[in-house]
Amino acid sequence: MEVVSEHRCFGGVQGIYRHQSRHTRTPMQFSVFVSSSAGRGKLPVLWFLSGLTCTEENFTVKSGAQKFAEEHGMIIVAPDTSPRGAGIESEDDDFGSGAGFYVDATQAPWSDHYRMYSYITEELQYTVCERFPVDSSRQGITGHSMGGHGALTIGLRNPQLFRSISAFSPICSPTRCPWGQKALSGYLGDDSSAWAQYDAVELIGNGHRSGKILVDQGDADNFLTDQLKPELLSSICNDNGQPLELRMQPGYDHSYYFISSFIADHIAFHASNLK
Amino acid sequence: MEVVSEHRCFGGVQGIYRHQSRHTRTPMQFSVFVSSSAGRGKLPVLWFLSGLTCTEENFTVKSGAQKFAEEHGMIIVAPDTSPRGAGIESEDDDFGSGAGFYVDATQAPWSDHYRMYSYITEELQYTVCERFPVDSSRQGITGHSMGGHGALTIGLRNPQLFRSISAFSPICSPTRCPWGQKALSGYLGDDSSAWAQYDAVELIGNGHRSGKILVDQGDADNFLTDQLKPELLSSICNDNGQPLELRMQPGYDHSYYFISSFIADHIAFHASNLK
Repeated sequence: MEVVSEHRCFGGVQGIYRHQSRHTRTPMQFSVFVSSSAGRGKLPVLWFLSGLTCTEENFTVKSGAQKFAEEHGMIIVAPDTSPRGAGIESEDDDFGSGAGFYVDATQAPWSDHYRMYSYITEELQYTVCERFPVDSSRQGITGHSMGGHGALTIGLRNPQLFRSISAFSPICSPTRCPWGQKALSGYLGDDSSAWAQYDAVELIGNGHRSGKILVDQGDADNFLTDQLKPELLSSICNDNGQPLELRMQPGYDHSYYFISSFIADHIAFHASNLK
Repeated sequence: MEVVSEHRCFGGVQGIYRHQSRHTRTPMQFSVFVSSSAGRGKLPVLWFLSGLTCTEENFTVKSGAQKFAEEHGMIIVAPDTSPRGAGIESEDDDFGSGAGFYVDATQAPWSDHYRMYSYITEELQYTVCERFPVDSSRQGITGHSMGGHGALTIGLRNPQLFRSISAFSPICSPTRCPWGQKALSGYLGDDSSAWAQYDAVELIGNGHRSGKILVDQGDADNFLTDQLKPELLSSICNDNGQPLELRMQPGYDHSYYFISSFIADHIAFHASNLK
């Protein structure tokens, strides 16, 4: 693991790191903030998964999360959203770079590299717990948009890893929206029965459960109706007894200004769940 | 004045705006955050001047200032750091774009466009006070690096406009450091007697005064010794009875992570001075 950069920030350390991934077969960068409480023992960790077009950098420089992670004595990990430079011809077209969708692709040419599900839940999980003072029994996961989808699905499928789940404007059901259908058919093929394991609404309908999930969604978000569909999440949670706090935030859009406005609440939510 | 973008942020509105400047003879963009308190009357305003290579965007997306401006019921204005696309051949070389140094250039070809001092203190001042709910009698100014120099010099020369001054890692004496000497000789010519009006140490030595100035400086800043030289500011303030609180912050560097770590303190400082 190589240190790309480290900066003092709110008394802790904000770093960007690079390692060679066995799962994606590319170098991968990720961001870690470690609170100054690290000297006093192992810390709970919050994973933040970013949305379409983002790298590990967007959340790191724009969210203002470090202040609240420092206040709660937490570590924050923000991975990249896909492999980079895998050498796939159409990688920078409709999906691919910046749009890994947190799945393990089964279709050529994607299946050799686009394995973000395993990368996050196994390889980066292992690397972070080995290299940073993480209490691996106290992990939470959140994310934005495509990364909100990632947080919901990875969290619901791995309750032994993630004791706490939240999301900002998540793609609630990728099998039922254009962004998701395009990516899932590309990565997983046309047999949509393989898609359900990467759809939070399907997972909850099939019995996956978590503690209360917190979701914030701006009501001025351009993608609300066609792509995000929080009403599907709300309905399936209600039908299945999955606790959900869905907060519609008036006037907020899909930008990082929305994330920064509510990140303090999410960090407090996870800190409380991981006590 | 054209609205480039507006986003709800911490209950207020973060906007980017564009206008045609008479001083720079180019279109200029600037950032304004307006607290939700705006409905209850005119608000104090804090100007943030950015450093080398920055635009109006860096502070806006990276500093996290909006949370604290909302808490104190303030407006924040962040201008660009130079004209853009003035059509000067060497504009993107050693100085020029992103390096206006907050001076009014007197040397061709710069003097036709590089008039950031007048742009900030007259034109943008007027535009902001006319278009936003600003209490023009309650204005403070701060900035980072080259923008810290700008805040100190513009604030000291215009006490009737700016009742409160602070800076992050300012270039304290541009006449005595390589960055400043290059820019001032280019914009103002080789007769260094013209430079003193753009040097905070010279201004204080020549009798300019303000209320207590707050300066934060990281002690792990790569530019500390050669370019920033806070000891010169400290010494001239001490010799002349200008109140200065210079805080050396251990382990912090020159990045926006440093600014975001201490912006809350600066906003509280200005809010208190502008009560």
